[in-house]
Amino acid sequence: MKRIKIKELLLTKPEGQTVTAKGWVRTFRNNQFISLNDGSTINNLQAVVELNSVADETLKRITTGACLSVTGELIPSPAKGQAVELKVKELEILGDSDAEKFPLQPKKHSLEFLREIAHLRSRTNTFSAVMRVRHAMAFAVHKFFNDRGFFYIHTPIITGSDAEGAGAMFRVTTLDPNNPPRDEQGKVNFKEDFFGRETNLTVSGQLEGETYALALGDIYTFGPTFRAENSNTTRHLAEFWMIEPEMAFYDIGDNMQLAQEFLQYLVRYALENCSEDLEFLNKRAQEEEQSKPQDQRSELSLIDRLKFVADNDFQRLSYTEAIDILKNSNPNKKKKFQYLVEEWGVDLQSEHERYLVEKHFKKPVILYNYPKDIKAFYMRQNDDDKTVAAMDVLFPGIGEIIGGSQREERYERLVKRVNELSLPEKELWWYLDLRKFGSAPHSGFGLGFERLILFVTGMTNIRDVIAYPRFPGNAEF
Amino acid sequence: MKRIKIKELLLTKPEGQTVTAKGWVRTFRNNQFISLNDGSTINNLQAVVELNSVADETLKRITTGACLSVTGELIPSPAKGQAVELKVKELEILGDSDAEKFPLQPKKHSLEFLREIAHLRSRTNTFSAVMRVRHAMAFAVHKFFNDRGFFYIHTPIITGSDAEGAGAMFRVTTLDPNNPPRDEQGKVNFKEDFFGRETNLTVSGQLEGETYALALGDIYTFGPTFRAENSNTTRHLAEFWMIEPEMAFYDIGDNMQLAQEFLQYLVRYALENCSEDLEFLNKRAQEEEQSKPQDQRSELSLIDRLKFVADNDFQRLSYTEAIDILKNSNPNKKKKFQYLVEEWGVDLQSEHERYLVEKHFKKPVILYNYPKDIKAFYMRQNDDDKTVAAMDVLFPGIGEIIGGSQREERYERLVKRVNELSLPEKELWWYLDLRKFGSAPHSGFGLGFERLILFVTGMTNIRDVIAYPRFPGNAEF
Repeated sequence: MKRIKIKELLLTKPEGQTVTAKGWVRTFRNNQFISLNDGSTINNLQAVVELNSVADETLKRITTGACLSVTGELIPSPAKGQAVELKVKELEILGDSDAEKFPLQPKKHSLEFLREIAHLRSRTNTFSAVMRVRHAMAFAVHKFFNDRGFFYIHTPIITGSDAEGAGAMFRVTTLDPNNPPRDEQGKVNFKEDFFGRETNLTVSGQLEGETYALALGDIYTFGPTFRAENSNTTRHLAEFWMIEPEMAFYDIGDNMQLAQEFLQYLVRYALENCSEDLEFLNKRAQEEEQSKPQDQRSELSLIDRLKFVADNDFQRLSYTEAIDILKNSNPNKKKKFQYLVEEWGVDLQSEHERYLVEKHFKKPVILYNYPKDIKAFYMRQNDDDKTVAAMDVLFPGIGEIIGGSQREERYERLVKRVNELSLPEKELWWYLDLRKFGSAPHSGFGLGFERLILFVTGMTNIRDVIAYPRFPGNAEF
Repeated sequence: MKRIKIKELLLTKPEGQTVTAKGWVRTFRNNQFISLNDGSTINNLQAVVELNSVADETLKRITTGACLSVTGELIPSPAKGQAVELKVKELEILGDSDAEKFPLQPKKHSLEFLREIAHLRSRTNTFSAVMRVRHAMAFAVHKFFNDRGFFYIHTPIITGSDAEGAGAMFRVTTLDPNNPPRDEQGKVNFKEDFFGRETNLTVSGQLEGETYALALGDIYTFGPTFRAENSNTTRHLAEFWMIEPEMAFYDIGDNMQLAQEFLQYLVRYALENCSEDLEFLNKRAQEEEQSKPQDQRSELSLIDRLKFVADNDFQRLSYTEAIDILKNSNPNKKKKFQYLVEEWGVDLQSEHERYLVEKHFKKPVILYNYPKDIKAFYMRQNDDDKTVAAMDVLFPGIGEIIGGSQREERYERLVKRVNELSLPEKELWWYLDLRKFGSAPHSGFGLGFERLILFVTGMTNIRDVIAYPRFPGNAEF
């Protein structure tokens, strides 16, 4: 018999029809009630074994984690909280699970422990919910852009260019590590490496993305990016996924508008398409909150927070306005900030961003027009000669979720900035070419996908929202 | 004024309304007719400059490649082949393009030359069409799986596991190349590397994908994969994108069925959503064909080939049947094959696959049940003890486009095979765990995304269907 997914069965009108479900045992009570989950939904199917209908030998093998095929009648359930149940006629054990050895016992495990068995943690309610939401968000990203006529570009992962300077890089090589070829100075001779040069893993697809924006108009990337930084935090990964739209003919205002519409679309999509998983995650987050001191608890639940973001405009203000607010803020005056805000030009710290978002405005904030000295070379220089048309979108609990800018489209200005910063002009020939031949005003931004998932799922450690996290000391699985 | 994309303008009813378009000049004839393209479509907008309405100084700057903003009335076009044109009232040069230096002259350039200016080639008809089709195919991949309840999983790119043995790997490291730390034997000490071990770029997400299939049911990956092989062919890249669905409770028959439905869906999606680009590519391919000797030309045009694949069942046959056909084939008897087919057990070469697909069956072929000795360790062993439940989908002109199998779900059999092949059982602990705890029959396959794009666009070199191709000696841009 064709197996039907549990998500579908739970929505089927129970009329005693014979159906087959397959999945993994979550619990087995009273030698009679099997809670079966197949990953299609957070909800389990209750399969009821009639007394004496299944051999004792088989009954013993129905343990937590075992994989079963059950066939029987789909009937209305007398139990609370479920519309249907399956009255078992045939039961087959597809895969045993030794109850003593199976690491996932039917109890609450710590997230730390589950990270060590990342190959099995997706069988828990929390992680299956997170990964289903993650899927929905990835699909929504593609749908949002496709519906608006953006083209998806796969920018290269291995790159010879180190120009962006967004962070430390991983080297990619096929040279013999023990005995690499050397040049006359005794240095490793990368001319003999696979690509005939030194190559690294990309930190951003933006520069290549721009080449396509200035040909196809609106494009976006969605791919893995890498940082070889030794950060062991709850917000950083060595390998993470980033979405980078890049739009010809957009100025910084259009860019901010798109960023807001994009994030609101994603959050709304989650609310509409992941309601069961979000309800579970909402409850989970509420329980986590209970363990915090009263004054650190969120005022809003996860779902309320999502609704709030979906329905309210983000606050836009310039860096200069933000500095004024921060300078005059209570935590600054009372020296509660770790980094006191004293003068225009300083980079904002996480504590400042959180103050603006969580205390002052109590909503997402888009900061724009940053001092040029704290931003990247490619950002468009404003007429004040002090700032660039950069923007950061700041979210409650997350901090920076999007960073972007209008790009400098004027050849002379860009070259001058490249040289001021001692960047390798020669390596950037193709990027500079874009400003020589049919340049156009254009803008773009980057969204860290895992930060989005943190926000939408209410999880607090970025290692828990990606299948197999990579961080210093860890590349297991 | 808000800019409207040319794709939309060309579908708008011309009623003299004032509109703004922005884009790049393809040609400028008689100081009057501008062909403007903005990448949203293969078609250009004709913008007509009224005599004396634009300053001579500005007219001179309307050169191929320049970026313009034009505002004017949208009116019915008297010219053939276009419904509308724009009568220019205002014209602004957004970005000049020095006619003498711009590498893309309004003439046919060789694909080889265009590869050297990959940052500009996307402004040609051919490459913009290819990249729009590529986008459509990527979106169709996500839509197909999302509609069927599959979940998208981002499997890791950097991996410590080298177990699949699908090919040579790139090493990922942050150690000082000139002076790496050494262990007591004088070997490089990877324990001091970023991840505390030697790591590589993934060759496949399958093994990690299986861990999610046995939790969420149906999943797929779509990400970059890597081969450090020194192949300079028209079919291989060092960095390419792969789609790998993995399904719990699927046997090899279900797997073949899904592969066929998937490919047919993608081809149909292209036919329905990329008709203008495909018409252009169809014409382009026909012109290419003209340069070939008569007997090497395709019997079907590109579009006819796509329709044929969309509408006809693929031929399924076992490896054993294929060997019989090949042994008795004319090219084998007449020793025309470079590798003669003499006995059961040999691996099939590209010439054999093409014979089956293009000469014998004249349709896509799914070969299954291959000798176990030429296939990977994880494939499910058949009862004959000689073959495994592997399958390859073979396409005309492309050869293998999909490779897959039912996976060995039986712990003892799998461990035995791992040891027969001297694979590192210890490193595979997590993969073997799947067979210890709730194992289930499951299957999956991999589709090389660029091979699909070759087939759908009729391009012949895989370096021309990805934004920035990576191959030995080349990591430019």
